[in-house]
Amino acid sequence: MATLSPACPRRLLPLSLGLFQAALLLFFTLFVTYDEPSAQANLVANQLCGIFPLFQDIQVMLVVGLGLLLAFLPRYGLSALTHNFLLLNFSTQWALVLQGLLHHFHHGQVHLDLRNLLTAEFAAVTVLISAGAVLGRTSPCQLLVMAACEVPIYLASEWIIITHLGVLDVGGTITIHVFSCYFGLGVSKALFGATRQPVNPKETPTPPSDLLSLVGTLILWVFWPSFVSVLCQPGDAQHRAILNTFLAMSTSALTTVVASSLLERDGKLSPSHLQNGSLAGGVAIGVVADMAVPPVAALALGSLSAMMCVLGFKFLTPFLTRKLTLQDQCGIHNLHGLPGILGAVASAVAILAAGGHWGDRGAGRQAQCQAAGLVVAMGGSLLAGLLAGAALRLPCLAQPPPRLSFDDSLYFKIQDQAGSPGLGGTAEEGALALKEQV
Amino acid sequence: MATLSPACPRRLLPLSLGLFQAALLLFFTLFVTYDEPSAQANLVANQLCGIFPLFQDIQVMLVVGLGLLLAFLPRYGLSALTHNFLLLNFSTQWALVLQGLLHHFHHGQVHLDLRNLLTAEFAAVTVLISAGAVLGRTSPCQLLVMAACEVPIYLASEWIIITHLGVLDVGGTITIHVFSCYFGLGVSKALFGATRQPVNPKETPTPPSDLLSLVGTLILWVFWPSFVSVLCQPGDAQHRAILNTFLAMSTSALTTVVASSLLERDGKLSPSHLQNGSLAGGVAIGVVADMAVPPVAALALGSLSAMMCVLGFKFLTPFLTRKLTLQDQCGIHNLHGLPGILGAVASAVAILAAGGHWGDRGAGRQAQCQAAGLVVAMGGSLLAGLLAGAALRLPCLAQPPPRLSFDDSLYFKIQDQAGSPGLGGTAEEGALALKEQV
Amino acid sequence: MATLSPACPRRLLPLSLGLFQAALLLFFTLFVTYDEPSAQANLVANQLCGIFPLFQDIQVMLVVGLGLLLAFLPRYGLSALTHNFLLLNFSTQWALVLQGLLHHFHHGQVHLDLRNLLTAEFAAVTVLISAGAVLGRTSPCQLLVMAACEVPIYLASEWIIITHLGVLDVGGTITIHVFSCYFGLGVSKALFGATRQPVNPKETPTPPSDLLSLVGTLILWVFWPSFVSVLCQPGDAQHRAILNTFLAMSTSALTTVVASSLLERDGKLSPSHLQNGSLAGGVAIGVVADMAVPPVAALALGSLSAMMCVLGFKFLTPFLTRKLTLQDQCGIHNLHGLPGILGAVASAVAILAAGGHWGDRGAGRQAQCQAAGLVVAMGGSLLAGLLAGAALRLPCLAQPPPRLSFDDSLYFKIQDQAGSPGLGGTAEEGALALKEQV
Repeated sequence: MATLSPACPRRLLPLSLGLFQAALLLFFTLFVTYDEPSAQANLVANQLCGIFPLFQDIQVMLVVGLGLLLAFLPRYGLSALTHNFLLLNFSTQWALVLQGLLHHFHHGQVHLDLRNLLTAEFAAVTVLISAGAVLGRTSPCQLLVMAACEVPIYLASEWIIITHLGVLDVGGTITIHVFSCYFGLGVSKALFGATRQPVNPKETPTPPSDLLSLVGTLILWVFWPSFVSVLCQPGDAQHRAILNTFLAMSTSALTTVVASSLLERDGKLSPSHLQNGSLAGGVAIGVVADMAVPPVAALALGSLSAMMCVLGFKFLTPFLTRKLTLQDQCGIHNLHGLPGILGAVASAVAILAAGGHWGDRGAGRQAQCQAAGLVVAMGGSLLAGLLAGAALRLPCLAQPPPRLSFDDSLYFKIQDQAGSPGLGGTAEEGALALKEQV
Repeated sequence: MATLSPACPRRLLPLSLGLFQAALLLFFTLFVTYDEPSAQANLVANQLCGIFPLFQDIQVMLVVGLGLLLAFLPRYGLSALTHNFLLLNFSTQWALVLQGLLHHFHHGQVHLDLRNLLTAEFAAVTVLISAGAVLGRTSPCQLLVMAACEVPIYLASEWIIITHLGVLDVGGTITIHVFSCYFGLGVSKALFGATRQPVNPKETPTPPSDLLSLVGTLILWVFWPSFVSVLCQPGDAQHRAILNTFLAMSTSALTTVVASSLLERDGKLSPSHLQNGSLAGGVAIGVVADMAVPPVAALALGSLSAMMCVLGFKFLTPFLTRKLTLQDQCGIHNLHGLPGILGAVASAVAILAAGGHWGDRGAGRQAQCQAAGLVVAMGGSLLAGLLAGAALRLPCLAQPPPRLSFDDSLYFKIQDQAGSPGLGGTAEEGALALKEQV
Repeated sequence: MATLSPACPRRLLPLSLGLFQAALLLFFTLFVTYDEPSAQANLVANQLCGIFPLFQDIQVMLVVGLGLLLAFLPRYGLSALTHNFLLLNFSTQWALVLQGLLHHFHHGQVHLDLRNLLTAEFAAVTVLISAGAVLGRTSPCQLLVMAACEVPIYLASEWIIITHLGVLDVGGTITIHVFSCYFGLGVSKALFGATRQPVNPKETPTPPSDLLSLVGTLILWVFWPSFVSVLCQPGDAQHRAILNTFLAMSTSALTTVVASSLLERDGKLSPSHLQNGSLAGGVAIGVVADMAVPPVAALALGSLSAMMCVLGFKFLTPFLTRKLTLQDQCGIHNLHGLPGILGAVASAVAILAAGGHWGDRGAGRQAQCQAAGLVVAMGGSLLAGLLAGAALRLPCLAQPPPRLSFDDSLYFKIQDQAGSPGLGGTAEEGALALKEQV
């Protein structure tokens, strides 16, 4: 497919990124400002005290937790952490600009506060999730182009779903997880087309890389209630969102163990089931977390979503790879797609069940909205992802050739042989091959 | 001793865990509900703002910190993290059910809030600590049975100690640390009986596994003040508890270095001393943390407990192994037993010293209570642990045979050879041997 | 240079540290007390709720984040984490004593609260930074002597800069970062003199050690806003400090990628650039974080400081090593020195630009103060560092001989061969050599 073109890849990344930083400086110079000092200093301090610890929790999730989760590829840990970090920063800044223009532009000025930062980070999360579908087979240039496309499409999609349709989705199940999953799958499909990607020995996790990845999962697992509840109404709704998320994630963890050891030979656990299934409940619960559902609903949702996630890894992913030649490196469809759809359906059911509260008509209409939101998130993002993926095939974006995929030495100045003694030869060959090509 | 029976172990874990999840769903459906939306939304929000960050700190401690601390066995890291995670979730849910029935059952309903979750998690901590005594030599089935026994016994013991005897123990020194230590030792004694366990080369930590384990220690060390102070009265008592815990842990860290390098040849440090001794002060301080003791008491307690912990590792553990054939894999007696007893004694002394505050009679009586609580925690748990341990000898619980202990490949679908190049053969043999047996 | 003297090193560390602990106990017994229970319990609880989560964030940064960042030396991870932890505790306690005597001594008593602890920890941070200059080539004894010297000098320097000169520096850019950088360089120069240190193969990071170090960077990156804003006025100033720090660090991360891939061959990234450059913005922003600067200033500062940091690694460090035989193991001059100076200059510019707010005279005077503070921080600390470094040459402090540097086996009772299969021989030789010498 695409090969490394001589000079472009070496310069394209720093030049385009540098240009973006320059444009950002210009935009900030012209338009961005902080809020005027408030007369109610106490109020600001109280709000900060409520939101800032949760903001930090989310930062840990995205920067450390997700980064480590992606480090399951044994020779690609540095790249996984770094590309995740790079994408998070780029996408957050890009979202700040776009959001500023769209939502916070008053009298020629964009006012910046911690809440804006938080919503910009939510936009960035979609990019981080989508990147999981093509992890290791794409260059940082390609990932940046993907991010540049995905952020505005996310903002549009979120506007349609939340503002226009009035969908309730406090934890981003539909707007973030479902959206980013199908966007990522679209990108992957368009990028790799109908050619089956060869299996690379560097794709197989080792126990140390699986361990690091599991630590990432556990960090995500611990802080997930902060992610779901940070934008809730303070007080009872937030309290309920925290409890619901905890319950869903706790049953997710146990159900994953049950499902994985029933499905695998000898009753052993598959590390990748554990790394993903334990989090499925958090994806599904987001959309109903602050609703007045009974606690048992959170348990059921956590359990079901973990089951679907494990089944997805076992049966659906191989099927999609074989039949649709659809590459999904991290299994984002199992962690974000299936549980997200489940959550969306559950939200419609919960609204219909709560009926009286809404007035019977209102409940039916709201349930339809939830369904419509799901359809928009799936269809729109898949289409947009296919288009974005086509753009990623531009040769100047330096997609790594298959046999050099999943290898840190392509992006980092590191000592090769030390990485993994048994496979040393391959990496050296790779580096050589790269030099010949470039 | 016990050997792997043909079909049972493969199915017993998922089936019993699945059954438990189903029963939990039923229980939640019938009884559990959230609090009614409170009229005082501000109050709820304020309380949440005070307790939720500490709750998250404790979650990080238990899920990430403790998990990594247990990962000092170089070929057992995945299992250590996973079994810890599994036990935490199972025990918390089981404690929620039992606590709900015992304490929060009003008008046919169990009300759930974040504080309940926290106390349920404290019950789960006892299981995690006890499991340290038998780490690596037990199957997940055995650990679940242990958890199923330990949680109700903990709740009974806690009721006797706190509610009936009126013991003061805000940080769980007596009710959690001492209790779980002797319960774990009882289990270990009953499980392994008088046969000395053979030394397994896989028990010896490597520098990378020691490093991960030390990171776990440091995470626990940082967040320990949250654990001790979370249930304190907000305000001065909580402030004092935080400061006392910090001071105790800080001297613990330094005293550990002093003691370890005085005891070891060439003045070198033993990683296991450091991994455990640094935390000893946190165990001991719990019971006096919120009392009006002078700061120097926290320093002294931290220093003494670290000393006892290091001496325990150097002299007592080998002695117990040799003379009583008592297996204590992680040295929980040194980290939780000895410092816990020291803390309990210190609390009695502190109460007697504060005398006037209580009325002289009152002080004497309260000091006696503390002593009685200690006796209950030690004696009751040891007895209960012996009984529980006997149950763990059931052949269907699939205790791993000694030469297959401490090995992730028994529980995980992983590539063996990549784990640790030097020892590759052993693991392959192990897997073969397992297949023959099953 | 210095060689290991027979008995001293084995005993000197535990004896001197033990003596310090005894003296600390005495000091606390005589003088230290907690605040009287306040009548305004609510107020205490509210303040605690505001400051404690940030305090914990900072603890994570210093204990886990910085420890891991220093673990880039592949055979020195345990030592890096442990020495960092040891120095943090020793220096904090030492600073508590000195601060208590200097600032909080009223009516024969020192009152202790969380804010005191925090400022003591800030004093300890200077030691941790300075130690980076001599990482791996110094014994723990030497580091403790350095800490014993640096803490009082820091307190004096901070008094001159903040109290006497009236410099504004809420995030410690001048008082902490610039000070500790030049102190550390002074120590390094005095300690190693004009002899060029031989390059040791153990200095070269491996991919796994680079990965751990990068995780440390990311932890520091996430929590840096807490470090900068913890002592700000609650409310708007704190809010602004958080946003400014986030913006600076975000552009730092991206600019580092740009600069590193422009400078390195093939457009690859250097892990050490990433590990340090991403944090440079946090160092520079500290001094202006709470000022009423426009957001674009934070962006510009973050970008410039990252650029200077990367350029420093590429050109200045080799130059200093070659021309001045100045050893800077972790490159603290690039991470703390250059961005710190940049921040100080920026603060003067910001004050002049804000002019009217201060009255034109006032602005000029304040800008001069900032410059004077910078000069004091640089000159005073360099001088003091040179003197302290001379003290570290005492033979009884057991500086490791060059070929035994960067090796955990000198300080820890560990199995050598498991660490890094390829280099096993070297370590064994080292241990042997050590035995011969001692």
